[in-house]
Amino acid sequence: MKYCCYCSATLVIRIPEDDNRERYVCPDCETIHYRNPRIVAGCLPVYEDQVLLCKRSIEPRYGYWTLPGGYMELDETTLQAAKRETLEEANARVDVQMLYTVINLPHVNQVYMMYLSRLTDLDFSAGDESSEVRLFSEEQIPWDELAFMTIRQTLICYFRDRAAGRFLLHTGDIIREGKNYSYREELTVDRD
Amino acid sequence: MKYCCYCSATLVIRIPEDDNRERYVCPDCETIHYRNPRIVAGCLPVYEDQVLLCKRSIEPRYGYWTLPGGYMELDETTLQAAKRETLEEANARVDVQMLYTVINLPHVNQVYMMYLSRLTDLDFSAGDESSEVRLFSEEQIPWDELAFMTIRQTLICYFRDRAAGRFLLHTGDIIREGKNYSYREELTVDRD
Repeated sequence: MKYCCYCSATLVIRIPEDDNRERYVCPDCETIHYRNPRIVAGCLPVYEDQVLLCKRSIEPRYGYWTLPGGYMELDETTLQAAKRETLEEANARVDVQMLYTVINLPHVNQVYMMYLSRLTDLDFSAGDESSEVRLFSEEQIPWDELAFMTIRQTLICYFRDRAAGRFLLHTGDIIREGKNYSYREELTVDRD
Repeated sequence: MKYCCYCSATLVIRIPEDDNRERYVCPDCETIHYRNPRIVAGCLPVYEDQVLLCKRSIEPRYGYWTLPGGYMELDETTLQAAKRETLEEANARVDVQMLYTVINLPHVNQVYMMYLSRLTDLDFSAGDESSEVRLFSEEQIPWDELAFMTIRQTLICYFRDRAAGRFLLHTGDIIREGKNYSYREELTVDRD
């Protein structure tokens, strides 16, 4: 970021009054340009004992499998974003059951919010960003060809919870240490 | 938004290739300037039968009571953001127990994420954005002097759950219709 998007003046970096961290500030119009993490909303669509995955036809991770999801837009709710992405990427309709995973990726400033949902019919197909959409049983999941760790972790939680006979909200973080990434479960409370 | 923050060219509004909605696009450097909702993270700190509230010493809602919370910053997780805000606004330390309310405000493009937590000690005090910080029992809650509907709704959920003897994640939306705002519960599933 270099120029003010409102007046085109060259920005300076300084700590604004009543703040405690450096921001991009416009010396002319005095706008403080905050930057914040973004929400990725999506669904884990289930049909009987299978889950729906999409093969990505765009970068990053072209050709790898993912759950339908994408950036939450202005003027919508996280649930609306999750259902919209599911329709756009898989032409699939779902009944959403619960917010299921909330996973932070602080190294890329994203927060994933994935909703557990039931596929309402089998009339799905590849959307704009997918080359293929299909159902997988647990044994068929292409674990080595999943696009993102958030998707892998959401599927791990799902099959583990399904085996245990109850579904809990899972919150956690994917943390980068050097070249390695690990999942750190945060607060999942089993209330049983 | 009028100018490109990377090259200062005047932006145009158009639908980028492979997209389905209008964006601010730079005709010179071709950057697409996405805009997305922001996360407000905070805590509901509990001590015995009381909850901690902060009296705001800043606008908006100067002089009204709120739970500690604020915009999630880059390079942190939602939980870290909630604990940081609790420390900054109330000089208070908490043991966080669970993600408790997730409330969308699509008319202002915010998503509140409030964590239920236990106050670890009574050594709290007004932080930079508060004029007073104190504990309230249910009977003492200043319902008519609360700063935001998200705070009101989180407290309503808390006292209702406490009476019922179990705490569930609550997800919902605050929707504006004309001049009125209403809370719409989304998906709270009682698994008992």
